[in-house]
Amino acid sequence: MAGSRLKFFGWGCEGEGMTPEEEAFALKIHRERFGVEEFASLPVPGLDELRLRAPRLRPPASLAALCSTERYDRAAHAFGKSYPDTARGMLNDYESAPDVVAFPATEGDVAAVMDWTGTAGAMLVPFGGGSSVVGGVTVDAARERPLVTLDLSRLGKVLEFDRASRAARIEGGAFGPALEAQLKRHGVTLRHFPQSFAHSTLGGWIATRSGGHFATLTTHIDDFVESLRIVTPAGTFETRRLPASGAGPSPDRMLIGSEGILGVITQAWMRVQDRPKYRAGGAVRFKDFHAAASAVRAIAQAALYPSNCRLLDAQEACDTGAGDGSAAILVLGFESADHPLDAWMGRALECCRDHGGVPERTEGAEAHREGAAGLWRNAFIRMPYARERMVPRGIITDTFETAVTWDRFEAAHAAITRATADAIRTATGRPGQVTCRFTHVYPDGPAPYFTFHALGRHGALLEQWRAIKKAAGDALLAAGGTITHHHAVGRDHRPWYDRQRPNLFAEALRAAKRVLDPQGVLNPGVLIDP
Amino acid sequence: MAGSRLKFFGWGCEGEGMTPEEEAFALKIHRERFGVEEFASLPVPGLDELRLRAPRLRPPASLAALCSTERYDRAAHAFGKSYPDTARGMLNDYESAPDVVAFPATEGDVAAVMDWTGTAGAMLVPFGGGSSVVGGVTVDAARERPLVTLDLSRLGKVLEFDRASRAARIEGGAFGPALEAQLKRHGVTLRHFPQSFAHSTLGGWIATRSGGHFATLTTHIDDFVESLRIVTPAGTFETRRLPASGAGPSPDRMLIGSEGILGVITQAWMRVQDRPKYRAGGAVRFKDFHAAASAVRAIAQAALYPSNCRLLDAQEACDTGAGDGSAAILVLGFESADHPLDAWMGRALECCRDHGGVPERTEGAEAHREGAAGLWRNAFIRMPYARERMVPRGIITDTFETAVTWDRFEAAHAAITRATADAIRTATGRPGQVTCRFTHVYPDGPAPYFTFHALGRHGALLEQWRAIKKAAGDALLAAGGTITHHHAVGRDHRPWYDRQRPNLFAEALRAAKRVLDPQGVLNPGVLIDP
Repeated sequence: MAGSRLKFFGWGCEGEGMTPEEEAFALKIHRERFGVEEFASLPVPGLDELRLRAPRLRPPASLAALCSTERYDRAAHAFGKSYPDTARGMLNDYESAPDVVAFPATEGDVAAVMDWTGTAGAMLVPFGGGSSVVGGVTVDAARERPLVTLDLSRLGKVLEFDRASRAARIEGGAFGPALEAQLKRHGVTLRHFPQSFAHSTLGGWIATRSGGHFATLTTHIDDFVESLRIVTPAGTFETRRLPASGAGPSPDRMLIGSEGILGVITQAWMRVQDRPKYRAGGAVRFKDFHAAASAVRAIAQAALYPSNCRLLDAQEACDTGAGDGSAAILVLGFESADHPLDAWMGRALECCRDHGGVPERTEGAEAHREGAAGLWRNAFIRMPYARERMVPRGIITDTFETAVTWDRFEAAHAAITRATADAIRTATGRPGQVTCRFTHVYPDGPAPYFTFHALGRHGALLEQWRAIKKAAGDALLAAGGTITHHHAVGRDHRPWYDRQRPNLFAEALRAAKRVLDPQGVLNPGVLIDP
Repeated sequence: MAGSRLKFFGWGCEGEGMTPEEEAFALKIHRERFGVEEFASLPVPGLDELRLRAPRLRPPASLAALCSTERYDRAAHAFGKSYPDTARGMLNDYESAPDVVAFPATEGDVAAVMDWTGTAGAMLVPFGGGSSVVGGVTVDAARERPLVTLDLSRLGKVLEFDRASRAARIEGGAFGPALEAQLKRHGVTLRHFPQSFAHSTLGGWIATRSGGHFATLTTHIDDFVESLRIVTPAGTFETRRLPASGAGPSPDRMLIGSEGILGVITQAWMRVQDRPKYRAGGAVRFKDFHAAASAVRAIAQAALYPSNCRLLDAQEACDTGAGDGSAAILVLGFESADHPLDAWMGRALECCRDHGGVPERTEGAEAHREGAAGLWRNAFIRMPYARERMVPRGIITDTFETAVTWDRFEAAHAAITRATADAIRTATGRPGQVTCRFTHVYPDGPAPYFTFHALGRHGALLEQWRAIKKAAGDALLAAGGTITHHHAVGRDHRPWYDRQRPNLFAEALRAAKRVLDPQGVLNPGVLIDP
């Protein structure tokens, strides 16, 4: 943002990326991890080298001013930010590139582009920041049928603010930083800070059930949605703005998580927060990961509701610089705009001590920015910039996540870790690394988030990634987890999603889609086959 | 329940009802309220006098043992507990009585009865405790088509308990007291205590988005549902048991609030709680209702999450014996199984004092059972027994509820109160009474609950009630509220529900119903017309 345009390859905007020091540090760790001296490196094709088909359709004159068939625009909308997306970009496989990119400035524009796409027999893919890591905007079907991508970045305004109810009406294309800047003028904040915060939009968060800042209670964007406004091929509608309702199945809940297959979210009334004035937080060390998990369970079941309750296993703490690898680290934090949090933090630390936890530091309003917590936070924000540098070196680093009930967690953690590590060894011929953290926790279970590193081989990277991904997905489903807690389904998670959701629910969703999108224009291949 | 059978007319089981003292007290208040000496009283027909049509269908031999066409069973399943239900019962209008009542003992029985009903061209209405106050089980269409009522009371067991995740698998027909008794053996509690607690079931709560014990945060049963198992005419399915998921629109949220039109909830994994050990609570007096509302707003926005935060206006406090009519009363309570609540209660009381509130008492673990809070609680539980005694005396007492954002609340409260009072005067020719309390509160708005009393005229009671109900419903919709926060839609709220939900959502829901219930067997007329 900030005047700069998104890279067509890699994370963030042009001019952004790993510093030389960050890159050297990452490579050093990978060298030690894989026991190699150097990495065979492939070049990444430049914009002029990309193999893009000639656009197969042209917008009508009335929409021409909103539309682009420029090489850059098409390339920058061909992919999300998943591992295979990045690998395919490197391999100059731009089959998923749209024929046309439309930049609507109004809700009327959205409807007009949608109508045209239907009439033209094309597909339409809503595009916020393009940060999907599950193939949500990567349309393989573009091989067979023309594709229009609808870039919503011009719909970025906070339109209205209701101080009494602490709610704001916000356009769907608002990016995280611009949204927060506008809310700040009113002294409030949405406090939804996914890792993709700078490069993703409100509409995208809602469409994908994005997981955010709060580790407990209001973990998903879902909880902040007061009402939605959506453009579908069958018409535009909005849900009623209410603090709560008991009138039938929630219309919002049908749209939240619909991943662009039912319509385009153009506006939402969102519940916002006063800016925190009080903070308590710090890190707690545990010799044993499962003892730490028990402490987290106690905290989650105590109804204390920390905003941060992120548990890193020893290796992940080490990899992110938050620990030395000898202990698991729990990053714990409370925040409030209303009251001091000593009682809350005090009791949470008691839960930690009950399970052998040793607090690193707990004092001071700025504790959350320092120590292990601060180191981890910085690593978290910088992490996505690594992929574009590592993929060309044949390094396969990816993450996947789930949620599972506590009774199954220990077995699930062991089975998923083992299956992924085994698959890395089988697929790549050498050991890799699998680590785990908790991103969010609930009274009835945690949301474990796994990171793996493997050294792949050029020419086989996608196949190797698929083998590892399959083993991990199969293991987490077999262990009782969900295929995704907050990365969404997209196209990459379809095989497991299809196994976990009831068939009759999929049929009901298909029927609902036929009502809202009778021609099957919207984001085909995501969630269901129309 | 406890060996005793449900009354076919009135609230609760045979042998239960208002004590003579309670009845005398209520009549005294009504006499003063309406300025009359006596009430013209109609007799209520006895079981033998009821006008029931001859059953129009007979179950097949394989289901005969599960089915009843007994006079009592048909009469006891003809109605819910709404005002018009009671008035019609008194008027011996049993057109909505089922032809057959089925008592399935297993999920297989549920499916078998459903299959038979479809084949026989009949309708099927799921029936938990029959406590609907919105016509949810009152099937006027029974005039045209045979009706089978599916009484789920034999499916009442807690089947499984998971200590680590604090969750229990429970059958859909479990009544509140039996459910809590079974959970108590494990040291846990669901803590869902709607006013109908003793005479309603888990499946009914979920199907109607029942509002319960907790005044904040986990206000609806929705929040405690971990997964569901449902029998539909198209087949039986269950959702995955997960603490949370980001995989597409939530299947549970399509079923929660579906009011029996999509299927019958036979089991649910529910999140349960440890039994509270710590309590803090008491009552706070406010001279001004809107100052009290501001205090409640401050508490709701402070993220303190009291379990009780019920605000009674001065008249309602007086009517329930909780106050003398000179002040609004806020009944405030915190509870925890984990930690003392001084910091929580202390800050909530500061919010009250900031808005002119004067605490009545705050000390002691038993504070919630004493003083204004205790008096109100007792009145709350006894209240439903009044209707069967007051309807025959021509007294029209009813309640309706909504939720509305804070910015609209003051105007909404004034407009709804005025419209209802005006309608009472117009419909009955004399003034009545309209009072308000908050049952639940949210950061972005309260859930106000209105009670009205009018003196009707025999021969015109239903018409008078409808005129008042229409004025109230129109006013609350015009003021920005929902037609129901936790009473559900049923048949009585259809006119307003049809105006508040987006048409395209209704079409999507209809399409989903066609998938799950292709013949339109289930609970026709509720939520949508198939």
